[in-house]
This record gives sequence, structure tokens and C-alpha cells, in this order.
Amino acid sequence: MNEPPSLPFGFSLASSSIGLRETRDAVLVTMRDGATASALFTKNSFPAAPILVNREHLSRSETVRALLINAVFANACTGTAGLASAKRCAEITAESLDCAVEEVLVFSTGKIGPPLPLEKFERGIPLLAAKPDDDIGGFARAILTTDTVEKIACVRCGEATILGFAKGSGMICPDMATMLAFVLTDARIEKEWLDGAWKEICDETFNRISVDSCESTNDAAVVLASQKIPVSETEFRQALFTATESLAMQIARDGEGATMLLTCHVAGAASKAEATTMARRIVSSNLVKCAAHGHDPNWGRVMSAMGSLHENVDPRTVRVSLNETIVWDRGSAPPIDAKEIFREPDLVITVDLGRGVAEALSWGCDLSHAYVDINAHYKT
Amino acid sequence: MNEPPSLPFGFSLASSSIGLRETRDAVLVTMRDGATASALFTKNSFPAAPILVNREHLSRSETVRALLINAVFANACTGTAGLASAKRCAEITAESLDCAVEEVLVFSTGKIGPPLPLEKFERGIPLLAAKPDDDIGGFARAILTTDTVEKIACVRCGEATILGFAKGSGMICPDMATMLAFVLTDARIEKEWLDGAWKEICDETFNRISVDSCESTNDAAVVLASQKIPVSETEFRQALFTATESLAMQIARDGEGATMLLTCHVAGAASKAEATTMARRIVSSNLVKCAAHGHDPNWGRVMSAMGSLHENVDPRTVRVSLNETIVWDRGSAPPIDAKEIFREPDLVITVDLGRGVAEALSWGCDLSHAYVDINAHYKT
Repeated sequence: MNEPPSLPFGFSLASSSIGLRETRDAVLVTMRDGATASALFTKNSFPAAPILVNREHLSRSETVRALLINAVFANACTGTAGLASAKRCAEITAESLDCAVEEVLVFSTGKIGPPLPLEKFERGIPLLAAKPDDDIGGFARAILTTDTVEKIACVRCGEATILGFAKGSGMICPDMATMLAFVLTDARIEKEWLDGAWKEICDETFNRISVDSCESTNDAAVVLASQKIPVSETEFRQALFTATESLAMQIARDGEGATMLLTCHVAGAASKAEATTMARRIVSSNLVKCAAHGHDPNWGRVMSAMGSLHENVDPRTVRVSLNETIVWDRGSAPPIDAKEIFREPDLVITVDLGRGVAEALSWGCDLSHAYVDINAHYKT
Repeated sequence: MNEPPSLPFGFSLASSSIGLRETRDAVLVTMRDGATASALFTKNSFPAAPILVNREHLSRSETVRALLINAVFANACTGTAGLASAKRCAEITAESLDCAVEEVLVFSTGKIGPPLPLEKFERGIPLLAAKPDDDIGGFARAILTTDTVEKIACVRCGEATILGFAKGSGMICPDMATMLAFVLTDARIEKEWLDGAWKEICDETFNRISVDSCESTNDAAVVLASQKIPVSETEFRQALFTATESLAMQIARDGEGATMLLTCHVAGAASKAEATTMARRIVSSNLVKCAAHGHDPNWGRVMSAMGSLHENVDPRTVRVSLNETIVWDRGSAPPIDAKEIFREPDLVITVDLGRGVAEALSWGCDLSHAYVDINAHYKT
């Protein structure tokens, strides 16, 4: 359950425009007493420069003291100069906060290709370090690119707080799909346990969304625990899952040009992997997305998307529903009323494969003119 | 090279409207002396009823005497009633032509779900059988659905003729992607040889195109040889390849809503499979397709699409060009002029991975408002 957002103990925030655009474009998160971090990064073979820096820093330091995040420039495909810029940003941050450089993580999102305007970071980072504002909404806005809304989730776990931020709207594909997500918590939790739990949770949330099947070079999802408040592991895992799932669904709903959230629930599968692959395939189908956009109950496209996995699923055991209206019932298609199906603003596609007990959820959005417009002329 | 189309010896054509729509909607191809057939069908696990019928007929008969093709109704996801309808269509055709039912192949394309209006076939097939018109353009038009142009290729091989027809515009994905393609030839050619050559050729042509990464339930590509004219196998293979490649490129160029042909040539790959997968991934990327549509030289999207294969390709050995303008040169991005790149109406993306000698081609198209419009309200 989402709560009114509040900042967990042990974190301090600053956000402002350092001149990359008119509105806020950079965030500095500081953890004076340090925090434990678990992080997942894109598997893309052309990872952005900050991803390379973070992998190295996390291998050298157990403690994280600062996150520096910027929008507008992805600092991806920028070669050795880009790598030097990302390292320099971490250095400036470390100098401003008087900590070790490997205790700083850096994140960028925006256009691939152009070099980071380093002089703006040289001026901007010390100003951010000098003026923490703890403005949660400001953080959420500063990291957005083509997103239309801020993405925040807050969940309590006993006395502890979990506060999550995410950005991502296009180039969103279900394999570490978040572009950027940051979850801050004051819970006291072992690093090893958190590493395992975070991987599992990301796999069931961020890795289950797709806006356009296009994976980013900058994806990163990080959870930071300032170790202030004791919690039960079981309750904390559930609370962390709730916050993360909420962020993932917010990203899918705000997909570029989206007018609705698509949810696909596949049940009755032979294995979890089968259910997951099928749910992802269905919400990723351009034809299913267009039909949803047009409020057209064209269930044949759900069938062809399922069948395209070549899993030898038997149409005689399959049942498919659109918003609880059954459209394919184990071998035949009952008559349906499109108006009834699209009475709801969102679309839930439910599939029962009728050959096992495994199930999985996946989220996406419809495909509209606005997606084409945004991506035919994306010049930040 | 495409020639003015002419009908090979041993084939007769008839096309007309049998009442499925106002314009021509059905084709009957007859081969009085029979023909040898090689056929590839969709791998979708929900194959349309005619696919099931054809697989059975081809297993029972060496000779094909007739093809019955209809647009408007795909006869897919129509259950046991749909299968009975497809069988009945083959029976009516066999009765009208006085041949065995297993010598008839049936093909349908159009909307998934609705039942075939069998009474129109009962009346229409005997009329088609009675009135061959050998109208090549009429055949090409009768099989179209959302296509905007007829797709015909004609190539000579010595005295023999190869005449190909195709349809397909949406639900086109590179794994037996043709929806429907028919290649007729009077060449004398062994069935076993033709089976092998046809599979190889389809793999390099129809299986290399993508409009929307959505695989159809009805895909079929068939070559029929009436065995009238002796040919050299080597020359015939080349001519058949030329005709088939032309049809594949025509389909990609006429993708739903397309304004341009996208061609991707990947060279310098470690293996043919790597080159093929990468070329397909690039032309299938919604973001690359939108950028092409907007004449935006956003080459970062080509890089992120390549990287999303997780093949550990090294950006320091990769070179990428858009219409011969180099945009990424082994580690860095030279300055470019977008106007220069988009002087051509089409876009050729050339990738040199710099780590081997294998190469592959793939074709696709841009993504436009019109694609969304067509597929938000596809009700034939």
C-alpha cells in the first residue's frame, strides 16, 4: 500500500538545475553515515559510462555515501572521453562531500551520443552538496526525461520507511527495464540478504514491464539501506516488493504515448519461465497494443502472440479473458460485447493455459500516435 | 532482375469476388498436369485451419493440382468448425476440377476468429473453376488485405519462367513471415532438390523481414513446379532467389503504414547466426523505426538495439553507417549531417562488427501514425 512519501532516516536530498535544461536536471543523495547498496545494471553490451564506473566502485567499497544523478545526457556511446567524464563527476562529488571516490555512484539518463557538458557539473555539484533541500517531489521531477508524471512509492515496515523513485517512459524492455530506480530505506538489513532479495524482486517487477521492447544502455535499479531501524526480514521483503511493484507499474502506465496500463496474467502454465515469457510476449506485441489503444477486442492477436512462442500450447486447453470477459474458451470463441470489455480505462488480459499451476504477471501499455511522435523527433 | 510478368506453362488462373468483400477476394490456381510443391508454413502453435489441411494433403500426395486462396477471413482460431470448413473448401475444389482432394491446397488470410462463410465458397468455387482468366494482376489484387500494392516478381531462367505473388503488410515477423507467397514455375526440377533450396531461400528472404515483430497464424510460402522446361539447377536457384528476395522486399516496403524501406546489412560478424540475429533486431526496433520515420539520425538507438543481444560486442571494433554516412567509428562518433543522410527516400543501416567475416541482410520499414490507425481498428 502506498503511503504519503517521507524521507527515511540517514538520507539527505538536493535537486536543482545545473544548466542541462531549464527545469531541475540533477539530484544529489547523501548518506552521511553511509548505506549498504544492492544494485542491478543493464545487460546491454554497450553500457553507459556511469554503469562502468558504478560496477567498479561497488566492487571496491562496501559503503555508499552519495548518488549523483542527471537527466538530459545519457553519457552512453561516448567512448573514453565519456568514461573520464563519469569518473570526474564522481571525483567532484567525493571532493564536495569529503568522502572516498568509490563511495560515490553516478547515474545518467537522456540522449545517447552527446558528451556530458562537464563544466556544468564542475559548477553544479558543489552547489548541490552545499544546499540539501530534502525535496522528495523535486528529486522525482529532476530525473524525468520523456516521462509525464513523477514516480514515487512509499511503504512503511514497522518503524522503518521505504521510499522509491523511478524514471522511464521509452526504451523500456523487460530485462532490467527500469532505466533508473532508487529505493531508499532506513531498515537494518544484511547486505548479502538484500542482494538476493533485490535481484528476486526486480525480476518480478522491473523485469516484467515493457513499453517498446527496446532495452536501454543506462538501466539501473539500486536499493540503499542506511541501517538505522531493526525490521523483520519477511515483513521487509514484502514491503520492498510492494514499493518496487508500484514503481514498475507506474513506469508501464506512463509509457511514451500511453493512454492505458496493460496487465497480463498468465496462469495454468507448465513452468514459471513459460508463464513469464508468455505474459511478456503478450504485453509487448505491437498488434495487441494497437488493438488496446483502439478499444478493439481483437483477441486473435493475443492468440497469435502466444502461439509465436512455438511452445506447442494446445488451443483446446487455453482460456483467454479481456477484463473478465471470456473471449476464447478451450477450443472456441464465445460471442462478446466490446463495450462491456472497454468499460474499464485499463486492460487486463488473463490467460489460463490449462496445463500446469505456474503463473506470472507482466505490465505494458498501448501504442499510440504520441509514441511515434515522441520517437520520430527525440532531440533533447 | 524483374521482368514483365508472364504465366509459366502448365498453370491456369482465375480470380473474382465470391462475396467476401466488394472487390476480388478469391483465387483458384489450377495445374491440369499437376505440379511438384515445396511448402513452408508458420511455426505458430495456433496454426490456421488451412495450414493443418495442407500439411496433411502434402503428406498424402506428391502432386498438387489446385490452390484455392481467399482473403478477408483467416480461418484461424475457429476450432473444429473451422477445420471442417477448410476441408470442405478443398472438397468443393476437387469436385469442380475432378481431382483428388489431397491434390488441393487451401490458403486463407484476413481476420482471426470469425468463421468462414462456407455458403459463399459453395457457390463461388465452381464459378472460379469454370472461368479461368489467367489474369496475373487480378490474382495479385485478390489476395491483398491491408496491403496497398500488388506484389509480383517475374524472373526468367533460360526458357523457363518464375512468377511469384505475395501478400502481407502487418503481423509480419521474421520467422516464416510471408503470410502468403506463391511462386509458380514451369522449370523441370527434382522435388527433393526443390525442398532443400526453397527452405534455404525462404530463410534468406521471407524470414529476414519484419514489419512489427508479430508472427501470423497463417504464414505460408509455396513454390510449384510444373516440370515443363529443363533448366540448370545453379541458374534456377539464383533466379528463384532473385524472385523471392524481390517479393520479400516488396512486403517490407509495403508494411502497414510504412513510408520507407529499411535495410540492415551486418558484416564482420563472428557467425552467420550472429549477423542474422543482429540485422533482424535492428530493423525490428520500434525506436529505430520511429527515428527513421522522423528522418532523425538517432544512431544511439541502433547501438542500444545491437547491445540488447548481450553478445559482448565491443564498441571499439564496431562501425555503423546510415546511408553511407559513418555515425559510429570504432569507439567514437564523428560529426554528421542529418540532411545528407536522409537525402535518399529509404534507409540503409550498415554495421561492421569488426570481429569476423560473416554477414547478413534484413529488411523492415518505419513506424508511423498510419500503423497505429490501421491496427487500432482492424475490422475487415
